[in-house]
Amino acid sequence: MIKITLPDGSIKEVAKNSTPMDVAKSISEGFARNVISAKFNNVTVETSTELTEDGSLLLYTWKDSEGKKAFWHSSAHLLAQAILNFYPNAKLTIGPAIENGFYYDIDFGDETLSDNDFKKIEDKMIEFARQKFEFKLRAISKADALQYYKEQHNEFKVELIENLTDGEITFCDHADFTDLCRGGHIPNTGFIKAVKIMSVAGAYWRGDEKNKQLTRVYGISFPKQKELTEYLHLLEEAKKRDHRKLGKELELFTFSQKVGQGLPLWLPKGAALRERLENFLKKAQKKAGYEMVITPHIGQKELYVTSGHYAKYGEDSFQPIHTPKEDEEFLLKPMNCPHHCEIFNTKPYSYKDLPKRFAEFGTVYRYEQSGELHGLTRVRGFTQDDAHIFCTPEQLDQEFKNVIDLVLYVFSCLGFENFSTQVSIRDMDNLDKYIGDVETWEIAEQAIINAAKDKGLDYVIVEGEAAFYGPKLDFMVKDALGRSWQLGTIQVDYNLPKRFDLTYKGADNQLHRPVMIHRAPFGSMERFIALLLEHTGGNFPLWLMPEQVILLPISEKYEKYSKKVLQLLENYEIRGLIDDRNEKTGKKIRDAEVTKIPFMIIIGEDEENTETISVRKHGGEDLGKMTIEEFSSLVSKEINSTLQEFKFN
Amino acid sequence: MIKITLPDGSIKEVAKNSTPMDVAKSISEGFARNVISAKFNNVTVETSTELTEDGSLLLYTWKDSEGKKAFWHSSAHLLAQAILNFYPNAKLTIGPAIENGFYYDIDFGDETLSDNDFKKIEDKMIEFARQKFEFKLRAISKADALQYYKEQHNEFKVELIENLTDGEITFCDHADFTDLCRGGHIPNTGFIKAVKIMSVAGAYWRGDEKNKQLTRVYGISFPKQKELTEYLHLLEEAKKRDHRKLGKELELFTFSQKVGQGLPLWLPKGAALRERLENFLKKAQKKAGYEMVITPHIGQKELYVTSGHYAKYGEDSFQPIHTPKEDEEFLLKPMNCPHHCEIFNTKPYSYKDLPKRFAEFGTVYRYEQSGELHGLTRVRGFTQDDAHIFCTPEQLDQEFKNVIDLVLYVFSCLGFENFSTQVSIRDMDNLDKYIGDVETWEIAEQAIINAAKDKGLDYVIVEGEAAFYGPKLDFMVKDALGRSWQLGTIQVDYNLPKRFDLTYKGADNQLHRPVMIHRAPFGSMERFIALLLEHTGGNFPLWLMPEQVILLPISEKYEKYSKKVLQLLENYEIRGLIDDRNEKTGKKIRDAEVTKIPFMIIIGEDEENTETISVRKHGGEDLGKMTIEEFSSLVSKEINSTLQEFKFN
Repeated sequence: MIKITLPDGSIKEVAKNSTPMDVAKSISEGFARNVISAKFNNVTVETSTELTEDGSLLLYTWKDSEGKKAFWHSSAHLLAQAILNFYPNAKLTIGPAIENGFYYDIDFGDETLSDNDFKKIEDKMIEFARQKFEFKLRAISKADALQYYKEQHNEFKVELIENLTDGEITFCDHADFTDLCRGGHIPNTGFIKAVKIMSVAGAYWRGDEKNKQLTRVYGISFPKQKELTEYLHLLEEAKKRDHRKLGKELELFTFSQKVGQGLPLWLPKGAALRERLENFLKKAQKKAGYEMVITPHIGQKELYVTSGHYAKYGEDSFQPIHTPKEDEEFLLKPMNCPHHCEIFNTKPYSYKDLPKRFAEFGTVYRYEQSGELHGLTRVRGFTQDDAHIFCTPEQLDQEFKNVIDLVLYVFSCLGFENFSTQVSIRDMDNLDKYIGDVETWEIAEQAIINAAKDKGLDYVIVEGEAAFYGPKLDFMVKDALGRSWQLGTIQVDYNLPKRFDLTYKGADNQLHRPVMIHRAPFGSMERFIALLLEHTGGNFPLWLMPEQVILLPISEKYEKYSKKVLQLLENYEIRGLIDDRNEKTGKKIRDAEVTKIPFMIIIGEDEENTETISVRKHGGEDLGKMTIEEFSSLVSKEINSTLQEFKFN
Repeated sequence: MIKITLPDGSIKEVAKNSTPMDVAKSISEGFARNVISAKFNNVTVETSTELTEDGSLLLYTWKDSEGKKAFWHSSAHLLAQAILNFYPNAKLTIGPAIENGFYYDIDFGDETLSDNDFKKIEDKMIEFARQKFEFKLRAISKADALQYYKEQHNEFKVELIENLTDGEITFCDHADFTDLCRGGHIPNTGFIKAVKIMSVAGAYWRGDEKNKQLTRVYGISFPKQKELTEYLHLLEEAKKRDHRKLGKELELFTFSQKVGQGLPLWLPKGAALRERLENFLKKAQKKAGYEMVITPHIGQKELYVTSGHYAKYGEDSFQPIHTPKEDEEFLLKPMNCPHHCEIFNTKPYSYKDLPKRFAEFGTVYRYEQSGELHGLTRVRGFTQDDAHIFCTPEQLDQEFKNVIDLVLYVFSCLGFENFSTQVSIRDMDNLDKYIGDVETWEIAEQAIINAAKDKGLDYVIVEGEAAFYGPKLDFMVKDALGRSWQLGTIQVDYNLPKRFDLTYKGADNQLHRPVMIHRAPFGSMERFIALLLEHTGGNFPLWLMPEQVILLPISEKYEKYSKKVLQLLENYEIRGLIDDRNEKTGKKIRDAEVTKIPFMIIIGEDEENTETISVRKHGGEDLGKMTIEEFSSLVSKEINSTLQEFKFN
């Protein structure tokens, strides 16, 4: 008998050589039917692997990411099997599971694979899947493995095997298909009920463009047909919500080849949207005791040598700017913190003056290779909703918590209800990547964990994700499509205060070193607005909408009254426009439905005579006739349901 | 007899060989007593020069800048005479009149001149002046002139004479003092009643640092002692109002050696002041139909090649920014217009869509040599309150007038009552300095003149002051000390629309070229705030003041009520702070008087019990007890007296 420890801490005694599936069945037959992969003593095993010693066992279903990984890895085998059925001379290389599905890189020789071939391969995969072939892992000697692939003239697998150690090589068989494989499969192909080949793309062998180009076949599979249908629908939705597409349609921003790639130009509606977001945050920040500052977009190279940024990023950044007549070197600022340190340094502070909280919507520039640019999410110039808090070590804890409150407030007013948090600490195996001494790092890491705990955040701790100057707390938000995005960040920094020799006079009349917090609830205006677009599909919270109402006069006769109404609405700070086209009202309503504008106001004789308006909600709901004042309080009420006042203690 | 034409067009017949002074006396003895210099047929002459032909005569008094020039030029002779009296071996070089006074560059040999020597020289100058020595100009041959200065071992004057043409050389004598001189003197030294030596400085002969260093003696003189006193008082005031000094005292901005010279860092109070100014303009601009945009601070070099800026300024600007991995060149943007042209180019327009008015508080960077930097008035990075109007040629006239209205509104709300305007057109002798064709330039110049005329502006036309891309209208404002500053600018541009191939579809369905107006009522935020500081001495209009009230609790007991009052004032958007030092009320009041804060609020038992406040104006006026609501309407009333609503037709 051996002792198997389960995740809940309970221990099962089972016969030696029992498999993970045996253990699952001993828990419940129903549960076992859903188990598709396993880890034993933290090593991936097959569900059919015989367990020969005591240890801890993890059993995964489709709901677990480890389960999906095994599912998709196994699907890659199935894909390869089906492809070899049609293209027996194709040479397999590698075929991993990825975030969404799997791919297989294949050398098709003289043949090519096109969209038209997908259907037959998918059908063949399902045909094979239904036969419930079991995946069987077997050890093989290096010599035999090499022999196998040499006979198949597959130089790729040969190269892979040559780099492996004898005694650690395994093959996986299912039906008559064999592949070099480390393991981690579902019990049999029968679990795979729905498959879809998504696309093909070129990919160099081992990612090196000097090597042969292979065909990468992307696929995805599911245990239920319905899940595939839902996934494809989600993809369709995501495409519609692509912020690049919406940004163009809503005339928010644009790019110009002449100005340069990755440098957004904000069009009037986009600039106004940004301003509303900035004013919203400014107002809350003012309550929370922040002070706005403005600093230049360049700084002498020396500034970044002092901060340490130059040594770390200098070579990969936009290169220095020289002056025509003097021996000077400037850099585009990649971060606002060195400038804010210099502002702190303009005058002496006592402990009574702290904390100082300097905030700036600071535009920074960072070089990205053109191939990596993507809409507003990956740009070369962006505006951080940045602030730096300079406080005493004793104040750090409270300040950190205050920032968490502010971030939570921002999320709430913008309708982000699902979020998770991550405490990023050092890579403990690589401590020389970080500037500053070990002791201060430990204090800072602990301070973040304490604040997160105290605020009841559901956080995970991730090693190796800290900034080079300090640990941080990141906020990840799930959008309407369930996708996860990194938004706000709060970072503790004991290092810049030292590098800039920042001091304050303590109660003991001695000079002390302040602690710095870097924070940005939005992250950057560009990234945030991109996310907001994809999250809402352009249906922003009412207070943010570029246009809140569209006025539809039923004929030219009512344009004058419409203009008066628009003016009155503007007095109530309601933004609108008039559709004064010479079109039928029905057509105007249908066209207005296509826009994202939340309210339609229909204006005709009756409305003019009674000084009222007829209101329809986007989506069709008829709110009937009302006065402008009534409408304004209706709008206020709806706005206040998402946009609360920030309460700062 | 000869015919002398006077400025009013009248003609005087006088005997041949009459002098300008004779003509002056023939007009009136009283007038003649004030005449100190003259021009005949546009050439500077002495008042004693005999006129031998018909011509036009200009007679100047101290009130004319030409009169001052002659006065100070003559004073330089007097200074040199006095200096030779004490330092007979000093060698004179050149001694011109300048904007305020005059200087003389002198080689003192082994001797030095210090502040302690000023008094004796000034006294000697007055002693000489009282003797009413006449200035007498006489022609001298080049040989004799050289001979004269060689005997004096004055190699400087020798060098000057060697570069002159024989037959055109004149000496000027007064008393026993002789100087090489082209003329333009007052009748005699007796006019000079007050003199002051301001300072000495080093100056290289002919401004070339390879040459010998001379001593530059700066002086000023006046026809009345009272005027000197006033001038010195004005200098004292200007020093107090120096925006660099006030900016530091009021904690508005700072500079950092590490960030770089000429790159202002806006401190919290300065950033808030800037924001108030920006919001003020934004609000008016919104009414006037402007739309805000946001563009990056860099652009590809190609963008400025297209705009023509690179050919014009490239070599003298901040040099191009390279990227580490791609062959790209970016420039810090020196102007926002190319970016706004690219925004215009994002979509097609019909004539019905125009005008488009894109506004941006756009920060631009221009290289200035470090020696030329000066506070906020001469910087390397500054934020323009920029906008570009794209309109049809038919709309130009009205748009230009609308911009004038906006500029006048801005001046009025900021208390600038004295201003003059200048229409800057091409240098007609140098037409190849300008880009674009002659015809469009003529139309643009005429459009500006028409608009200025129509708006009743008191404008002057100045040749050669146009921008290289178009003519402009500049607004010059006189500050509280009578100094003139260039503020707002409005420029017409037919050239960039061509270079960026901007078009719109006309009523004729054909593509047409829009006209562009560049405009900035403030000019730049930096320069404007510098001017505002020097104009007001920090006593801004109430709506702009960083702090509008200071609360003075008479003891610790009333701090709580003071905080409540401050909160209530904030609800009325009144900015304030509390002086919670443990000081006597008298001391708090005296200290508050030193600040520029317009209102003091004294809080004690009586105020707390009656829920009122006691208000004192900066300067001492006691406004007595009132409720917070009463105070708030008092503040509103004072604000509204300068800050009107912008009315846009």
